[in-house]
Amino acid sequence: MRSSAMRDLMAVTARPEVISLAGGLPDTSTFPPKSFAAQMTRIAQESAAEALQYGPTEGFEETKDCILQVMGAEGMLPEPEDIIVTTGGQQAIDLVCKTLVDPGDVVICEAPTYPGAVPVFCSYQADVVQIECDAYGMRVEDLEGTLARLAAEGRRPKFVYSVPSFQNPAGVTMSFERRLRLVELARQHELLVVEDSPYGLLRYSGEPLPPLYQLDGGDFVIYIGTFSKILSPGIRLGWAVAPPPVMEKIVLGKQASDLCTSTLTQYFVREYFAEGRWREYIESLVGIYRERRDTMLESLREHFPAQATWTEPEGGLFIWATLPEYIDTSDLLAKALREDVAFVPGQAAYVDGRGRNSMRLNFSGVDGGEIREGVRRIGKVISEQVELYEALTGEQAVAPPRDDAEDTNVLPFRKTGEA
Amino acid sequence: MRSSAMRDLMAVTARPEVISLAGGLPDTSTFPPKSFAAQMTRIAQESAAEALQYGPTEGFEETKDCILQVMGAEGMLPEPEDIIVTTGGQQAIDLVCKTLVDPGDVVICEAPTYPGAVPVFCSYQADVVQIECDAYGMRVEDLEGTLARLAAEGRRPKFVYSVPSFQNPAGVTMSFERRLRLVELARQHELLVVEDSPYGLLRYSGEPLPPLYQLDGGDFVIYIGTFSKILSPGIRLGWAVAPPPVMEKIVLGKQASDLCTSTLTQYFVREYFAEGRWREYIESLVGIYRERRDTMLESLREHFPAQATWTEPEGGLFIWATLPEYIDTSDLLAKALREDVAFVPGQAAYVDGRGRNSMRLNFSGVDGGEIREGVRRIGKVISEQVELYEALTGEQAVAPPRDDAEDTNVLPFRKTGEA
Repeated sequence: MRSSAMRDLMAVTARPEVISLAGGLPDTSTFPPKSFAAQMTRIAQESAAEALQYGPTEGFEETKDCILQVMGAEGMLPEPEDIIVTTGGQQAIDLVCKTLVDPGDVVICEAPTYPGAVPVFCSYQADVVQIECDAYGMRVEDLEGTLARLAAEGRRPKFVYSVPSFQNPAGVTMSFERRLRLVELARQHELLVVEDSPYGLLRYSGEPLPPLYQLDGGDFVIYIGTFSKILSPGIRLGWAVAPPPVMEKIVLGKQASDLCTSTLTQYFVREYFAEGRWREYIESLVGIYRERRDTMLESLREHFPAQATWTEPEGGLFIWATLPEYIDTSDLLAKALREDVAFVPGQAAYVDGRGRNSMRLNFSGVDGGEIREGVRRIGKVISEQVELYEALTGEQAVAPPRDDAEDTNVLPFRKTGEA
Repeated sequence: MRSSAMRDLMAVTARPEVISLAGGLPDTSTFPPKSFAAQMTRIAQESAAEALQYGPTEGFEETKDCILQVMGAEGMLPEPEDIIVTTGGQQAIDLVCKTLVDPGDVVICEAPTYPGAVPVFCSYQADVVQIECDAYGMRVEDLEGTLARLAAEGRRPKFVYSVPSFQNPAGVTMSFERRLRLVELARQHELLVVEDSPYGLLRYSGEPLPPLYQLDGGDFVIYIGTFSKILSPGIRLGWAVAPPPVMEKIVLGKQASDLCTSTLTQYFVREYFAEGRWREYIESLVGIYRERRDTMLESLREHFPAQATWTEPEGGLFIWATLPEYIDTSDLLAKALREDVAFVPGQAAYVDGRGRNSMRLNFSGVDGGEIREGVRRIGKVISEQVELYEALTGEQAVAPPRDDAEDTNVLPFRKTGEA
């Protein structure tokens, strides 16, 4: 799915009658308007002139203090001077590419990968190599083989891009063993790893795992974070943490891109954190999203045909569903939109046209009732496709084996033991 | 001056004891905090959830309505679908380059040009060709020669970048005849012109001139505007207007760069324009900045030595001063900073190291008293340099002729008649 198709999709889902399970939208209606008003009044009274003025390219120290609190909550403790405040996490990805990627350079990412990263990699003309995921995240053992193959060709990847926790789009989380191995490989090969972690604090079940940044200590791991999913995407505030030589170039890139990040929205975050209730708000989000995830899983079991499989995320915003191979989810989307429901076709998460029979489903943006109804409608159009196929071919489509799918090209996203 | 040196300069000027005539800062203390608080309260009460959510990549229709009002005030009437809301005017420059420039492509701009555009052109590896300015803006007659020379070499410039009104950094304004001729050349050569116009409505004397976009009708002119100088740079809101085939690519570039522009700051602008007093505020700014410009011109006459010349802008934020050739303003800046005053060395406005004996002075960011004191301090370090030179060489440095400087390499920025 091309980016322009993605934009069209977003435009269609803006129609109020459409239930969108497509976007990666947090539910901002959960944020207390009174707190918002109080913070803005305080800014207007105490520092209106400063809030409306340019700020430093790197971001304000006060914003970095808030970032340190968020990262500290996951056990990370970077130096403030290694942090740059960006116009959302998306800009952090863009700046890392702008800094590191020359046309033809190899960039390694997961398969599937964050659909919004694909156009960035492509815009810098990277040669994107994707490493398969399973229920335990990127198959780091496959990465080793790929690194060896590339080395034999005399090629050194510029970095490995990963969303290790509650991955976008697959919803899977990289196991502790793989995290350790990935960081070890980074050191061994002097290879940069870009850890994109928008949802780290949004865990609904299972035990927390250390971020790659924490395991590595920041030598080879560049960390990308954002306030989008724990506060607001409309303020466009994210950040990157990188070692000094890389950071210096990122700052120059940032200056050329948009001079500095909004002072007004940085002040908003400062005031919000000063209130001291940001963790409470995240806890409330965790409660709400956990319920929505459970509702979606339940609805999938009820409404999706036996031929479909899906991931069971421990956090984040997304579930990834895999359908029989003969279903093209881009075609399916057209049918789904006629039923006023939307999802993201899986192809957007690959650079090579794979993923045609998969889809990303978001469970954070709409309430339980809409999730149930949305999944029911998608399930209906899938079932129609399955029935049509079976009627035309006279054969029963075989469901992908749920316990071991290594030999099929359906991703083995179900957990089967230790990874 | 490299960008990193520029950043260091900005860091130094953040010291409260330094009078900075360096930045291009509007005086945001002129904005009424009560109005700011009222708008934010309204957003919190009526649309907090929406203001905190993602928005469309192109920007909200309501923001485009505000942009149409601003452009309408200068006689322009673009189609809303030709507009994209950007993260400040800087991002608009970046996106235009991202869309149009491949490594080695020729980009034409003014000499001197906006110092913040130079790193953008360089980051896309453009081959930058600069066309001299005089008191009437870019010498469009020189552009004709350059186009002919490039054509002979089989090279087609991707676009001509110009700040026609109250240019940054030179403060000069392109004459009506040259505007007409530039637009004519664009049509004749099917050449895109990027008109960057951050200060169009900030005119303090003289008669308004039509924007290039108005003269051309938007066929070959891409227009860049911003709320930074007429409202606030801290909200990071600018825009670009481009014909559909270019706009389509700009939107994809925007999506990869930062997904969308801040919803919160777009809502702020919407509320601010709904108040219906935005033109009044600009009128108040015009009054304040006119006085500061006059103060700076008066101070220059009083404190700069006879060997210096400077431009007399009819609007905008900047005056450009040219010193004797033996003065390097990068060295001079180090001396000036010891006197707690800052300016931007002219070299930042050239890609080829020229401009060493010139400087950009900002008159919008500080009040009359500071302007006088700042210019006095700079005048003092210049005079010391002049005296030292005369003592060492035994000769009187010759002031550049004020009525016709064509044969010197000092820019003939004084008006001498019709251009």
